[in-house]
Amino acid sequence: MTAEILSTGDEVLLGDLVDTNSAFLCSRLREMGIRVSQITVKGDEVDAVCDAVQAISRRTTLCLVTGGLGPTQDDVTALACAKALGESLVLNPSALASMKTYFDRRGFELTPDNEKQAWLPAAAIVLENTHGTAPGFAFQLNQCWFFCMPGVPSEMKQMMEACVVPQVQTIQGTRTRLRIRRLTVFGLHESKVGALLASFNDQFPGIRLGFRASFPTIEVKLVCDAGMDEKATETVLARAGQWVVQQLGSKVVSHTGLSLEAEVGKLLASEGQTLAVAESCTGGLISHLITQVPGSSDYFLLSAVTYANSAKIRVLGVRPDTLETFGAVHETTALEMAEGARRVAGSDWAVSTTGIAGPGGGPTSKNVGTVCIGVAGPGGVAVSRKFEFKFDDREKNKKIFAAMALELLRRYLTEKKSV
Amino acid sequence: MTAEILSTGDEVLLGDLVDTNSAFLCSRLREMGIRVSQITVKGDEVDAVCDAVQAISRRTTLCLVTGGLGPTQDDVTALACAKALGESLVLNPSALASMKTYFDRRGFELTPDNEKQAWLPAAAIVLENTHGTAPGFAFQLNQCWFFCMPGVPSEMKQMMEACVVPQVQTIQGTRTRLRIRRLTVFGLHESKVGALLASFNDQFPGIRLGFRASFPTIEVKLVCDAGMDEKATETVLARAGQWVVQQLGSKVVSHTGLSLEAEVGKLLASEGQTLAVAESCTGGLISHLITQVPGSSDYFLLSAVTYANSAKIRVLGVRPDTLETFGAVHETTALEMAEGARRVAGSDWAVSTTGIAGPGGGPTSKNVGTVCIGVAGPGGVAVSRKFEFKFDDREKNKKIFAAMALELLRRYLTEKKSV
Repeated sequence: MTAEILSTGDEVLLGDLVDTNSAFLCSRLREMGIRVSQITVKGDEVDAVCDAVQAISRRTTLCLVTGGLGPTQDDVTALACAKALGESLVLNPSALASMKTYFDRRGFELTPDNEKQAWLPAAAIVLENTHGTAPGFAFQLNQCWFFCMPGVPSEMKQMMEACVVPQVQTIQGTRTRLRIRRLTVFGLHESKVGALLASFNDQFPGIRLGFRASFPTIEVKLVCDAGMDEKATETVLARAGQWVVQQLGSKVVSHTGLSLEAEVGKLLASEGQTLAVAESCTGGLISHLITQVPGSSDYFLLSAVTYANSAKIRVLGVRPDTLETFGAVHETTALEMAEGARRVAGSDWAVSTTGIAGPGGGPTSKNVGTVCIGVAGPGGVAVSRKFEFKFDDREKNKKIFAAMALELLRRYLTEKKSV
Repeated sequence: MTAEILSTGDEVLLGDLVDTNSAFLCSRLREMGIRVSQITVKGDEVDAVCDAVQAISRRTTLCLVTGGLGPTQDDVTALACAKALGESLVLNPSALASMKTYFDRRGFELTPDNEKQAWLPAAAIVLENTHGTAPGFAFQLNQCWFFCMPGVPSEMKQMMEACVVPQVQTIQGTRTRLRIRRLTVFGLHESKVGALLASFNDQFPGIRLGFRASFPTIEVKLVCDAGMDEKATETVLARAGQWVVQQLGSKVVSHTGLSLEAEVGKLLASEGQTLAVAESCTGGLISHLITQVPGSSDYFLLSAVTYANSAKIRVLGVRPDTLETFGAVHETTALEMAEGARRVAGSDWAVSTTGIAGPGGGPTSKNVGTVCIGVAGPGGVAVSRKFEFKFDDREKNKKIFAAMALELLRRYLTEKKSV
């Protein structure tokens, strides 16, 4: 089965908004074994959207439409679809009731502007919106099913999962639950991951393999229809996951698709241990990543972002001698930073970064992309290492320095556990 | 003049990649006064891309194409365009020369795989790629000009500015330099900004007004063709900028389109002053934002991300009494954090945050979205304020807390200067 996506909205064509909805829908359909053959973006014009709906209805059997369901004049999806169907808009009582429920629950009053949102093509089937005011709707034209969802990502995602996925599975004739296994990879290029897993499809013909690069990590996704036997499916997926780990070795940093910071958090929480961070070149990014994980306050005590040498000395107790002899970007400095953060915060573990994120800057002998990372922990763990990356870009360097620091910490946390 | 965009790549249709290129191109074309009527995304298939090129050539006079210029088998743009033109591919000597230059400069050798990238439609005009290996090309079909650029954003942007924009301006019959003025707005919804500036087009008919929301700030962009008289254009743009400032008042946080963190950095640098930060709920985000600005090491000394109360006490010297009496989320705590950061770092200024980013969490009396912000500075500045935002989302709350803290600091920095 193939599908198309129709995304509507002047703000996308004006360049004010990046269309992330389509990427989400492509990825979600792929998990269901449905290939997307085209994405079309149209502005908020009745005729433009109507033409697109008619053209798509002749090319494919499934189309997901996003946007244009709001209360204002420039929301034209319902009208354009009615025109494509040769129908007029009617006040849909079930859409109106669903909106009333939504408004009542929040103590708001339904305005005439909002009532417009309940005027749908006569043949439309309502899709309930539990996260917003705009009801969605579905209809069929020329053998093609259209599912029209709101453009607001949170509302669209909710409607996709709750209403659209089950109906599409009915159309597909499969009502099975998909099983998905995710692994997180760090330290390999996407092309290299692809090459190392090239024989996956021969080994596991029933499982779809996907990658999603989110610099500097890559998510490897194994997707399978739990057709006949859910238990058998889980077994095959587990074997496939093990095979991937065999091919990629220690580059697999999470066997459950967690981010590096979430994996580190899980390891710390499971041991009841705490963490402090000392950052220089990463400038707070490690701390920002760690605190994006809900529950991080259970194990994360402190990050000292000591950009200035004076702050390294005052806050972390780095010795002025060390900075004078070796400079800020050095393994000894990194180690003293980690040990200082651990001491000041009274934490079990600490990790530190000091390096040159660029652009430019730094003494000639220390190139942009150089970072020293220190780890201090229980049982006398006190190490530091130097890495050199090849990026010219400040943001990329900050990201890869932060990931490398979390990865080094993760390795020590894992070793400690397995000892 | 209207245009279309054709974006190619299986990775977009598989949902592995969000198509940010199209948003960039839409925005860039809009600045040139060109409206985009449709974006089409196609996979890496010769026939699919060929069909799209032919269909587009019948609908419009300008099409920007991205992706599919790489060295591998799945890069089919050149072949698809040749097919649409009814031509075959030929080895383009100027494309080959441009690639050789690129490789020579980096000491790499040209492989047969790379040579494939120099095989272009016979009628193609080469567009040089100074940031990568894939040359771009242009051609005309049915009155429509096609400009094919690489899919890698940095290469595409470079080629767009250096090669495509000048040629499109020639086609448009305008070779004038565009003048752009940007302002940054914080503290208003995009719809509210739009309403307040509704009469802009009546006041300044020659200037195009645009918005780009990047939560929680909004960029207001004034674009003008410097047609006849560059000086007159600058004068009109300046007047228009002043008018916008009059309408939006203190919500304009930068008159030159800088981010809040860059504006704060500029103010600090101009006075030769330094900054320290004490973060709790923002978890390092303020520090991350400040250190994204190149040159921030001149004024940024320290951020103490004191997530745990013990760290607030140990690192910043917050009094245990204060935490016991008022709790972590309180104006008094925020003030002691700011004063502590200023003292520990020895900086001129300090700003602090303590609040509840969610999801859930916090004692019942202190809701998610609450933040206390402290500012300490020279001349006895020692203030703190409480704010309540209405977001449920951890990431949004962190972002708006960080922006509010930077904004509060900015106001004090501006006042100090104007005294």
